[in-house]
Amino acid sequence: MNATANRVRLGILGASGYTGAELLRLLAKHPGVSIDALTAEKNAGGTVGDLFPHLAGLDLPRLKKIAETDWDQLDAVFCCLPHATTQDVLSGLPKRLKLVDLSADFRLHDTATYAKWYGHEHKAPDMQKEAVYGITELARDQVKQTRLCANPGCYPTGAQLPLVPLVEGKLIDVDDIVIDAKSGVSGAGREAKLGSLYGEVAEGIHAYGIASHRHAPEIEQGLSQAAGRPILVNFTPHLMPMNRGILSTIYVRLAKGTTAEQLRETLARRYAGEPFVRVLPMGQAPATRHVRGSNMCLIGVFADRLPGRAILVSALDNLVKGASGQALQNFNLMHGFPETLALDQQPMFP
Amino acid sequence: MNATANRVRLGILGASGYTGAELLRLLAKHPGVSIDALTAEKNAGGTVGDLFPHLAGLDLPRLKKIAETDWDQLDAVFCCLPHATTQDVLSGLPKRLKLVDLSADFRLHDTATYAKWYGHEHKAPDMQKEAVYGITELARDQVKQTRLCANPGCYPTGAQLPLVPLVEGKLIDVDDIVIDAKSGVSGAGREAKLGSLYGEVAEGIHAYGIASHRHAPEIEQGLSQAAGRPILVNFTPHLMPMNRGILSTIYVRLAKGTTAEQLRETLARRYAGEPFVRVLPMGQAPATRHVRGSNMCLIGVFADRLPGRAILVSALDNLVKGASGQALQNFNLMHGFPETLALDQQPMFP
Amino acid sequence: MNATANRVRLGILGASGYTGAELLRLLAKHPGVSIDALTAEKNAGGTVGDLFPHLAGLDLPRLKKIAETDWDQLDAVFCCLPHATTQDVLSGLPKRLKLVDLSADFRLHDTATYAKWYGHEHKAPDMQKEAVYGITELARDQVKQTRLCANPGCYPTGAQLPLVPLVEGKLIDVDDIVIDAKSGVSGAGREAKLGSLYGEVAEGIHAYGIASHRHAPEIEQGLSQAAGRPILVNFTPHLMPMNRGILSTIYVRLAKGTTAEQLRETLARRYAGEPFVRVLPMGQAPATRHVRGSNMCLIGVFADRLPGRAILVSALDNLVKGASGQALQNFNLMHGFPETLALDQQPMFP
Amino acid sequence: MNATANRVRLGILGASGYTGAELLRLLAKHPGVSIDALTAEKNAGGTVGDLFPHLAGLDLPRLKKIAETDWDQLDAVFCCLPHATTQDVLSGLPKRLKLVDLSADFRLHDTATYAKWYGHEHKAPDMQKEAVYGITELARDQVKQTRLCANPGCYPTGAQLPLVPLVEGKLIDVDDIVIDAKSGVSGAGREAKLGSLYGEVAEGIHAYGIASHRHAPEIEQGLSQAAGRPILVNFTPHLMPMNRGILSTIYVRLAKGTTAEQLRETLARRYAGEPFVRVLPMGQAPATRHVRGSNMCLIGVFADRLPGRAILVSALDNLVKGASGQALQNFNLMHGFPETLALDQQPMFP
Repeated sequence: MNATANRVRLGILGASGYTGAELLRLLAKHPGVSIDALTAEKNAGGTVGDLFPHLAGLDLPRLKKIAETDWDQLDAVFCCLPHATTQDVLSGLPKRLKLVDLSADFRLHDTATYAKWYGHEHKAPDMQKEAVYGITELARDQVKQTRLCANPGCYPTGAQLPLVPLVEGKLIDVDDIVIDAKSGVSGAGREAKLGSLYGEVAEGIHAYGIASHRHAPEIEQGLSQAAGRPILVNFTPHLMPMNRGILSTIYVRLAKGTTAEQLRETLARRYAGEPFVRVLPMGQAPATRHVRGSNMCLIGVFADRLPGRAILVSALDNLVKGASGQALQNFNLMHGFPETLALDQQPMFP
Repeated sequence: MNATANRVRLGILGASGYTGAELLRLLAKHPGVSIDALTAEKNAGGTVGDLFPHLAGLDLPRLKKIAETDWDQLDAVFCCLPHATTQDVLSGLPKRLKLVDLSADFRLHDTATYAKWYGHEHKAPDMQKEAVYGITELARDQVKQTRLCANPGCYPTGAQLPLVPLVEGKLIDVDDIVIDAKSGVSGAGREAKLGSLYGEVAEGIHAYGIASHRHAPEIEQGLSQAAGRPILVNFTPHLMPMNRGILSTIYVRLAKGTTAEQLRETLARRYAGEPFVRVLPMGQAPATRHVRGSNMCLIGVFADRLPGRAILVSALDNLVKGASGQALQNFNLMHGFPETLALDQQPMFP
Repeated sequence: MNATANRVRLGILGASGYTGAELLRLLAKHPGVSIDALTAEKNAGGTVGDLFPHLAGLDLPRLKKIAETDWDQLDAVFCCLPHATTQDVLSGLPKRLKLVDLSADFRLHDTATYAKWYGHEHKAPDMQKEAVYGITELARDQVKQTRLCANPGCYPTGAQLPLVPLVEGKLIDVDDIVIDAKSGVSGAGREAKLGSLYGEVAEGIHAYGIASHRHAPEIEQGLSQAAGRPILVNFTPHLMPMNRGILSTIYVRLAKGTTAEQLRETLARRYAGEPFVRVLPMGQAPATRHVRGSNMCLIGVFADRLPGRAILVSALDNLVKGASGQALQNFNLMHGFPETLALDQQPMFP
Repeated sequence: MNATANRVRLGILGASGYTGAELLRLLAKHPGVSIDALTAEKNAGGTVGDLFPHLAGLDLPRLKKIAETDWDQLDAVFCCLPHATTQDVLSGLPKRLKLVDLSADFRLHDTATYAKWYGHEHKAPDMQKEAVYGITELARDQVKQTRLCANPGCYPTGAQLPLVPLVEGKLIDVDDIVIDAKSGVSGAGREAKLGSLYGEVAEGIHAYGIASHRHAPEIEQGLSQAAGRPILVNFTPHLMPMNRGILSTIYVRLAKGTTAEQLRETLARRYAGEPFVRVLPMGQAPATRHVRGSNMCLIGVFADRLPGRAILVSALDNLVKGASGQALQNFNLMHGFPETLALDQQPMFP
């Protein structure tokens, strides 16, 4: 990872969280980048190894503050900052920098929707216009061209990958979509908060953010675009005791005359050749532990016992395909690298 | 727990499984019974403490085989045997014994439905006719009168407690019910099988038995009865890493003009005064860890973002309200004990 | 739990932590007390159910601040406050109140040792003199007489129960004791701190506080007293992914001519008749999951392969026998209740 | 992974277990091998993806029986068979095949010791003579030369890496070594056995095989060799709820005049430049989650409070450095590949 003339000189803003650490894990195998700046406001001056002993073996620059960053020495930036802060910081950067933003700040095309769900006016509406929402498999060509990739949320990735092709194909009733999602705890970040304590999470499960989670409008944006008209969905996330993984169990009503098999065929056709999406044989159920640590998204399709209905199940690792892996996938495209570069490790089980 | 003239003399058939052990845990505090027979075919001759060291402190009879049991010395039996075996055994017992059966063998009123789902003809169709399906809160009066209580399945208890009053009240569309349930591993029993290994369950989640789980017809039986006509439901169980607990997230379409608040009021009214069912304030979400080890079922009600829809969430401990606790609750009623006897311990958290 | 003339009127200071909640769980079954005051500085005004939904079914007073407490209405106090604060608060209470203190503030007889390990002068040295250090089985008579019981730490209970009788009997070399302890996460309390996050604890183990943990001097105090001279021990705690439980694996050198069997016999004799300590048959290993939720401490004894050495293993639930359960056991003695009152529930497994 | 003229043609015997799957995960990134045979007696005819859906994306041959294997098509074999079976199978293979054996069958130089601990005569004593016991860092030169590498056990690797240099340097008392090890569940393999069920392992810990575990003689063999005379050690393994990882906390008595700092310096010097062993700064504690999924072994050294004693802590992933990773490390040496080939991925946290 030493800088060389040909390498993309990279900065990671907000390197003290789980998505930052996951980027570093993946980038350690990337031959085309040099990591030249890492920021962490509270831990500036320290090393990545102080925060993440599992990465102590990597040769990385010291953590510094954003204000100390020399932007001239960088070609590209991954941004892992909290929302709102992100808009402030990214809007002030030189325009020649390519950006992959892992926050929610540039995901919603409509800044009014953003304001409604995030509680404040969007601070960089012009920049929003150039952002490409990057579920890679659904927006590959735009991602290649963009300077600013809004990397999708973990839940929205797991929901849209199976749903968008079906909505586009008019194979399901867009007004009757229920998404019941189960997430691991790393999705809540590395902040010290009561709800993420071992004792509050282990050996139990609960739903949260029912009918009010900020990923709902993000999912709806993608599905509305696919449907050609505004739609709403039921999205109900649950927190459960696992570090990584999101399983989304999605209940749909079939369009008249459509079968579950046809849903599967449509998805299989759409994702044929995709390195990171695999549509399972009919009736086979994906498990989050089959994608742990990898950039894969598995999709299973099932006929329901209820006539005219079907069930979709998707599984992904929220820190990889749901965050840093997809960010790297998008980065690879933006910089002309092979899309799978540094993303081809197998899942880790058990 | 020494036998005295006034105590109910009790036998537990199949005491080597988790539900048998849980009965023993609860019965240890019951002043009205003496446990006089425990069977475990493979472990006959041994002690409960050999199988369950946590119960080694109890003064209990040795395990023996069913064939060695002296039925004349017993007044009542809890049956924790596998399905099919149960029919064989229970149909051969003296008619004066009161029975609480924790297997699936007498739950389905229609023996043809039983045969279809369990793969063999029902072996005791006459006995089936006298069985009362015992979700206590929904069948208290019949349970009091019966000699044979078919104790409900864990998933069906979590689904029917919130749904039956709403179906009876015609407050929801009975043709559009989706039940997404998440269960702990103890529901799979104490058999040594690959799918229950720590490595196969920890740190992950998957759906199983999609559109084919045997608890679906059990749920449908209860809801069909409440609806006055045969209905089908979507029931999708998931296996997740926790020992105890089932969370059921239930998606329903409201009857015309009905609101989620009305659902909650109906449930709150129905379960007012019930010691083991608590309907939470509007918008409050139950968690399985809030009922761990107790006989409680918590129910939360939520308005959906989708117009005309609502979300119900129930939480219970599958080994207590979902099995042995409800069995004891029914037993108490059948024998004239206070319903809450030996069932009043608080949940254990964390 | 309504107050009646004969009940002990009880206050719990610091009711928002795990030990406070565990006291409430246990006391719910206690016929001789009424809980008349609960304090929680940050959550004053709220209910126990707000903090601990699993206890929402109990009829309890609202939380208030310590300063708002009417001490005249109380007979006894459980104190679950942080160290140092405890000395401040307890030293200001009316002398007629009986106190069980779950903090470390009154455990060390020598206030100089306290100052060294806790980093500040002891604020109530006179009160320290009347404190009885209450591992119940080792100090039953003194506990019965005291007004102030210093409830032992979780690790020290698991270490001293097996070791004190052996040291007293001169059966082991007191200068060669290694205590390797493994604790669940609830021992770290309910504070939102990074090290207690699910992601930092699940699926791993590490040692902490090596050669510097504050429970070391507490263990040494008890063993020094038993030995009749000052001794030091190796005490190495580990944090592992479980909510409750401490397993202490203790490596000892036998006194000349002594065998491991003799250690076991000594312990078995010492604890014969004790309701909450069970010495297992030779060679049988205790597991934390066999005591979960109960006030039991299990002890196993093993011959080592190394000649002249033996291994002791103790298991307890850190929140029960290691904290709130033993506190209640001591309370019962101090107030003339049967020692096992409200402490006789069976362990919960799985 | 397609076979090419230059690749080492590889067979894996016993590919249905966790170590077989882990080999496949690692080998997927190895440019110098082609996997041409996979055996699994019970699952012959099926695919790796049937057994391990996380590996379904790999292009691998079907599983077959050992008897169906065409040895002429192979250059090397990883053997993941159970003990005893291994001796039968490996002794019948063509002598030109290079072998890395992950079983215990060729680890003990002394076949009498083998017979004593494994309960039957060694079936291939001649072959035993050519076996090299391969803790790579301690036997690199011999491994390079051997045809048969006996890959070390997981516990013995974690114990010998910190201890051997200290014993060789006469820095510790070899008659007073206590090894308290904590292992994840994958060490017990993928067999369906009661003790590995989620319910029996989650939320608890217990010691097992106390003074009788088969890894004790393996550790003693290595330390005896280092000491130049036969020695015994205390080795006490514990089973705890994590998939991967072994933490070994090792209690030693320092040789006269030696300090803990000197232990650390000796280890740091010995392992300087080693890619897979890292000696931490004085007083820093390793955690298993910092090596998860990687071939690293971390070692920490601590002064004890007891004068003249020290504490060593090692952490490794039992499936990688404790099994398949070290096997690949040895394989690389035996075939002239760079030692780190396909082993350079970072640990996965959380």
